[in-house]
Amino acid sequence: MGFFKKHILDISGLSCEEISLILDTAEGMKEISQRSVKKVPVLKGRGIVFFFSEPSTRTRLSFEMAAKRLSADTVSIGGSGSSMVKGETLIDTVKNIQAMNPDIIVIRHSSSGAALQVANHVKCSVVNAGDGTHAHPSQALLDMMTIRQQKGGFEGLNVAIVGDIAHSRVARSDVVGLSRMGAHVRVCGPGTMLPPGIEELGCQVVPVMEDCVTDADVIIMLRIQKERQERILFPDEREYARLFGLNQARISLAHEGVMVMHPGPLNRGVEIESGVADRKGSVILDQVTNGVALRMALFYMLTGGVRHENSH
Amino acid sequence: MGFFKKHILDISGLSCEEISLILDTAEGMKEISQRSVKKVPVLKGRGIVFFFSEPSTRTRLSFEMAAKRLSADTVSIGGSGSSMVKGETLIDTVKNIQAMNPDIIVIRHSSSGAALQVANHVKCSVVNAGDGTHAHPSQALLDMMTIRQQKGGFEGLNVAIVGDIAHSRVARSDVVGLSRMGAHVRVCGPGTMLPPGIEELGCQVVPVMEDCVTDADVIIMLRIQKERQERILFPDEREYARLFGLNQARISLAHEGVMVMHPGPLNRGVEIESGVADRKGSVILDQVTNGVALRMALFYMLTGGVRHENSH
Amino acid sequence: MGFFKKHILDISGLSCEEISLILDTAEGMKEISQRSVKKVPVLKGRGIVFFFSEPSTRTRLSFEMAAKRLSADTVSIGGSGSSMVKGETLIDTVKNIQAMNPDIIVIRHSSSGAALQVANHVKCSVVNAGDGTHAHPSQALLDMMTIRQQKGGFEGLNVAIVGDIAHSRVARSDVVGLSRMGAHVRVCGPGTMLPPGIEELGCQVVPVMEDCVTDADVIIMLRIQKERQERILFPDEREYARLFGLNQARISLAHEGVMVMHPGPLNRGVEIESGVADRKGSVILDQVTNGVALRMALFYMLTGGVRHENSH
Repeated sequence: MGFFKKHILDISGLSCEEISLILDTAEGMKEISQRSVKKVPVLKGRGIVFFFSEPSTRTRLSFEMAAKRLSADTVSIGGSGSSMVKGETLIDTVKNIQAMNPDIIVIRHSSSGAALQVANHVKCSVVNAGDGTHAHPSQALLDMMTIRQQKGGFEGLNVAIVGDIAHSRVARSDVVGLSRMGAHVRVCGPGTMLPPGIEELGCQVVPVMEDCVTDADVIIMLRIQKERQERILFPDEREYARLFGLNQARISLAHEGVMVMHPGPLNRGVEIESGVADRKGSVILDQVTNGVALRMALFYMLTGGVRHENSH
Repeated sequence: MGFFKKHILDISGLSCEEISLILDTAEGMKEISQRSVKKVPVLKGRGIVFFFSEPSTRTRLSFEMAAKRLSADTVSIGGSGSSMVKGETLIDTVKNIQAMNPDIIVIRHSSSGAALQVANHVKCSVVNAGDGTHAHPSQALLDMMTIRQQKGGFEGLNVAIVGDIAHSRVARSDVVGLSRMGAHVRVCGPGTMLPPGIEELGCQVVPVMEDCVTDADVIIMLRIQKERQERILFPDEREYARLFGLNQARISLAHEGVMVMHPGPLNRGVEIESGVADRKGSVILDQVTNGVALRMALFYMLTGGVRHENSH
Repeated sequence: MGFFKKHILDISGLSCEEISLILDTAEGMKEISQRSVKKVPVLKGRGIVFFFSEPSTRTRLSFEMAAKRLSADTVSIGGSGSSMVKGETLIDTVKNIQAMNPDIIVIRHSSSGAALQVANHVKCSVVNAGDGTHAHPSQALLDMMTIRQQKGGFEGLNVAIVGDIAHSRVARSDVVGLSRMGAHVRVCGPGTMLPPGIEELGCQVVPVMEDCVTDADVIIMLRIQKERQERILFPDEREYARLFGLNQARISLAHEGVMVMHPGPLNRGVEIESGVADRKGSVILDQVTNGVALRMALFYMLTGGVRHENSH
């Protein structure tokens, strides 16, 4: 099977076959990062622009390492050094980038829909590294990669996602991807953090955390995104931890061998107890390791890797 | 003919023959950016330092892509992460950079004359990426490259430059370069933005925009540089647009096939109507594309490319 | 002899033999930076993460150039673009970096002991690029390299270190390294800048500057680190210069051929007279040149360069 997508904008645009092909390709990439020479020349002479207008450490670092391990050339814009201070529109900025002939633009932006808007105006590939509260497809794909490694697949798995569902692009992309692959997804959080209609993405709303994690095979804890809340949505961190924090007692309600996941960065003692984050069964750092391989796979596939070799 | 310049500090230091040789070399570089493998090894092992103490997206990105397409190693300093916060002088900073043996320093600085000052203290090549209101030679060269592509040459062309002439290093470099190559250059702008004595650079001052663009073959609109004005030089943006904005009515006074240019970033609705920026005949994005090729040519020539091959 | 250190955290962890081996290796690296093709493939496919949470120009630039001249892949985090704004702990951040499989993390941090703490939590090598007031080993090693080049060795040399000893990680690392190699080290500064017990690191406290520099073979002037002082430790800059600034009169008390050193950036007219910084005998820029070679040596040795070739 070939891979014919031009952009990676969200999970809803990917079929089950495409998701599986991405995860298979990513598994093949993992080994490269364990070599002493962590570099293959497949993207030599390809240009990738990282356009991050929101702060990021791990996601940018992961994408950048992925690009370099494939020998791509990278340049970064965004943040304080950017001429977006001069008041240019997003579309004018990306048309300018396009005029310099990159192969891929990786964009993180505070507006939901920004990545699609960019894709509509450029000739190169676009990878959405998180747009507003809309989508974060590479995070969902690395989550799926991590789950598949441990559980062998998704069919019939119980997945609990707990936290600020309303403001989480990770939650949205996870719900869409995991339900499409056959998992039963339940979401839980304070009433102020549960957006009306979220069920339509393919999940069940379970307001009490104990109910949500019971019999879970996977628990995905979300970060309390203080920086993305426009007003106070819960009284205080201690109260939040009491109602929606992951602790050992709640884990004991889940299936044995439950996987504990978190997209990072952790608020230890708020959404997750410190001991729980570090316990056996926590795959939070595996997610990070898989993230590099997954993004290598995306870059490889978007520049024609799989198409050239496997399509017929 | 060989190219024996060590630095690119301003346009006035370049002869017509040198300008033509740079543009010819840049034309040869353009094709590299259209390949799927956009990379040649000619600057492998050469080090280029980007020293940008003013914010920049497009210029820095363009220089950086140019460097990488030639396989140079790049490092960046400047902006908030720089130790210039520690109060070191410009000359001490660049002497330190020089001591690390780079091949080229690309500098953008808020002081007119900074690039020359740097060149006087280092052994490597210096490229001026914009110094105060003085010069922006690579921008003028890419403008000339774009004009030559469409018009075949410069002799007898009418070029109108409209906007804040006083604060624009682009305008100064364009006036010097285009007049040297044989174009008739007229400049226009509010009285507060027309510096006394600008005619001596090789242009005619035409205070009314309609007169300035009449029979023009090329119209170069300048950005209203709000960040570089020390005081208010015009009443408001709407009034500015009425008197000095480029619209369809004014374009109709120019020669048929007039080229519309702008160094970016655009203030749509201020110095240029949105429809005009996007119309057929607008070459604003061609300028960006040419910019990468032009800067590749500069790097190549400064490190001896042309000298080695063509000098005899 | 082989080199079996995994990390470079401070000078006290290095034996005389290890220091000599590092300096010998660095001498061999110097020549690479003088070639026209300044690049060797020894670290190709190795990943180095620069994690600088304090501002830095010269140190980051030096490390980055060193990495690129060895063909390593580099990524940077820290500063304003970092997600440390999101409140993650240092250890969680570096565990995340570790999960991406870098070969080396170079860290600069405002907390003394941060580099060791990081080394205790990662599998890759850690290079301390300055932690609080504790240590700056690569600076001390490049200082030793510069001294050895001119003086042939360290045995019996008189070295005067003058300035804010209390807040200087450079001073601490220089004292430890130089005294270990056999030099007589004297330190001098205002009483408020002389930490109790500094003698135990291997130096003599000499409160009057004239006494300190008399018969010196090397004078290392320290920068007044305004940004690292928590309160005012001296009345004003002029008074500081009068009592502890290096001028021609004080130099004349030293041995003929005295070397004048400074880690940069200079406060001209405060801790060092401008003419003295630029005089014959000042090796301040040689320190910078040596810094790149020294850091190349560290990267090379930590990734097994010397071990593979010389150990038996």
